[in-house]
Amino acid sequence: MAQSEFALIQRYFTTATAGRGDVRLGIGDDCAVLVPPAGADLAVSMDTLVEGRHFLPGCDAVALGHKSLAVNLSDLAATGAEPAWATLALTLPDADEAWLQAFMQGFSALAARYRVQLVGGDTTRGPRSITIQVHGFVGPGQALRRDGGSAGDRLFVSGTVGDAALALQQRLAGGPVDAGAVRRMDWPEPQVGLGLLLRDHASAAIDISDGLVGDLGHLCAASATGARIVLADLPLGGSVAAACAAGDWRLPLAGGDDYELLFCVPEQGVDAMLVACREGGHAVTDIGCLAPGRGITLVYPDGTQSRDIPHGFDHFRD
Amino acid sequence: MAQSEFALIQRYFTTATAGRGDVRLGIGDDCAVLVPPAGADLAVSMDTLVEGRHFLPGCDAVALGHKSLAVNLSDLAATGAEPAWATLALTLPDADEAWLQAFMQGFSALAARYRVQLVGGDTTRGPRSITIQVHGFVGPGQALRRDGGSAGDRLFVSGTVGDAALALQQRLAGGPVDAGAVRRMDWPEPQVGLGLLLRDHASAAIDISDGLVGDLGHLCAASATGARIVLADLPLGGSVAAACAAGDWRLPLAGGDDYELLFCVPEQGVDAMLVACREGGHAVTDIGCLAPGRGITLVYPDGTQSRDIPHGFDHFRD
Repeated sequence: MAQSEFALIQRYFTTATAGRGDVRLGIGDDCAVLVPPAGADLAVSMDTLVEGRHFLPGCDAVALGHKSLAVNLSDLAATGAEPAWATLALTLPDADEAWLQAFMQGFSALAARYRVQLVGGDTTRGPRSITIQVHGFVGPGQALRRDGGSAGDRLFVSGTVGDAALALQQRLAGGPVDAGAVRRMDWPEPQVGLGLLLRDHASAAIDISDGLVGDLGHLCAASATGARIVLADLPLGGSVAAACAAGDWRLPLAGGDDYELLFCVPEQGVDAMLVACREGGHAVTDIGCLAPGRGITLVYPDGTQSRDIPHGFDHFRD
Repeated sequence: MAQSEFALIQRYFTTATAGRGDVRLGIGDDCAVLVPPAGADLAVSMDTLVEGRHFLPGCDAVALGHKSLAVNLSDLAATGAEPAWATLALTLPDADEAWLQAFMQGFSALAARYRVQLVGGDTTRGPRSITIQVHGFVGPGQALRRDGGSAGDRLFVSGTVGDAALALQQRLAGGPVDAGAVRRMDWPEPQVGLGLLLRDHASAAIDISDGLVGDLGHLCAASATGARIVLADLPLGGSVAAACAAGDWRLPLAGGDDYELLFCVPEQGVDAMLVACREGGHAVTDIGCLAPGRGITLVYPDGTQSRDIPHGFDHFRD
């Protein structure tokens, strides 16, 4: 505990991630100095995880290091940006080297897979929280956005939805847990490759962090459309499917933390997109469409329709 | 308190700062999409302020909004970068609109003065803390750094030092306070204009956030030099000068939060730098020099020399 802030930073952060040629000056000065590629747009996103709210006290620090970066890379994925640099603000109750080492292990392993270099940040003492900003590149005007959808566009989601919410429910209940679902919650995989591919196909995209319906609502609001979701078509893991078969659709609709991509594609572009996804090894599922007007309509397996929908996670909602 | 996170963000953040032509997509999507100027380097810095550590509970939220951005702009100043964009991660115990409005008032007023646009961020519920990242531009390879100093370079500091530490000392003591010093602590002024000017003159620079001796130590370590400080030459406000006259030099040497620039200039460049500073209206003072070897030597007004020096603020020091 006699470790100074500066020594801690030097030891764990400067060696945490691989060197990139576009980093002129990395950790250890007042600013990092970076060299953006000529002619590219810069996409940036910042997310905070707070102990007791986004993760439980005493949780696995390796997984937390992974997840902290993953949720940020997921935003780059939703924008179709190629990841490059990250900054990290760590607020910690104490200078626990074992925790820091474990956290950086999870962070660095994911960073290495996407060639992300940690270029700066801050460490402070206080209640544990993690703020990360990621930076990526995308061709001029090519970024995927929420506001490009039109009524009639088909609506797709990657992977499966509801697993992370199921795992959280099971963990809080203290009973048996679904190992696959727990992995989805603790080790989310950002859909970076899919996002890059979708720049050529999708009219709009968003990542599912707050829950399918909540994030679809953001996309619809930005695109000024409504939407229809065909529940029978939702891609569900086994345990989530069982809950839905019993009539409770809250896990896939309102459960957050999935970090899959939700995107829309004009009807005439669907075949080409599906071919590209198949070739790229990305599982995507047609779950409905954008529709005229406002609001989201759920089409139940028995054919009934409803606009009465559960809401997603919202930090300041009561 | 039924205010949703998204409505809060929309209301206070999207209108907080002026629009810049180089922001393709601002607040409200998964990423902000920015257009760096052709051929420029991008300088970024991130700082966190935690309640109870960097600011007191119940402090003036307008001043806090100003200071949160100012300490970040100070890092851009030390790099000689022109400010452009900011991101803001706010963790708040509750959705207190009055607090948020006041905070953004202080933030936005300073942002407007430096044409900084708030382009993204995150809001979460938790113990109050503020993380800001700033982004600025500097010509390729022109960034001021800590590691360019050489033995023999003259050492300069802008403004006066020790005032913020005096104000903190007085505020914690609960007695009478020096209004000028309190203003220095609560409303620090980032030396952005001076930093831009120094790109043509300084061999190395750093901003004084941790205290003069602490930050000089970082500059010396990066530049692989020692340094001499002539205490009689330190630029001091009246109350700080009085403490020093009584033999206690801790305020200007070890007190943090000054956000002045400490920089070195090769002997032959000093005259030109001083002319440029005079024309630009920047007060700078010669306080010593970089020296061969390691360590910092203090030269007291009575001519005695000492290497026994107080240390700066360090988040994880016991």
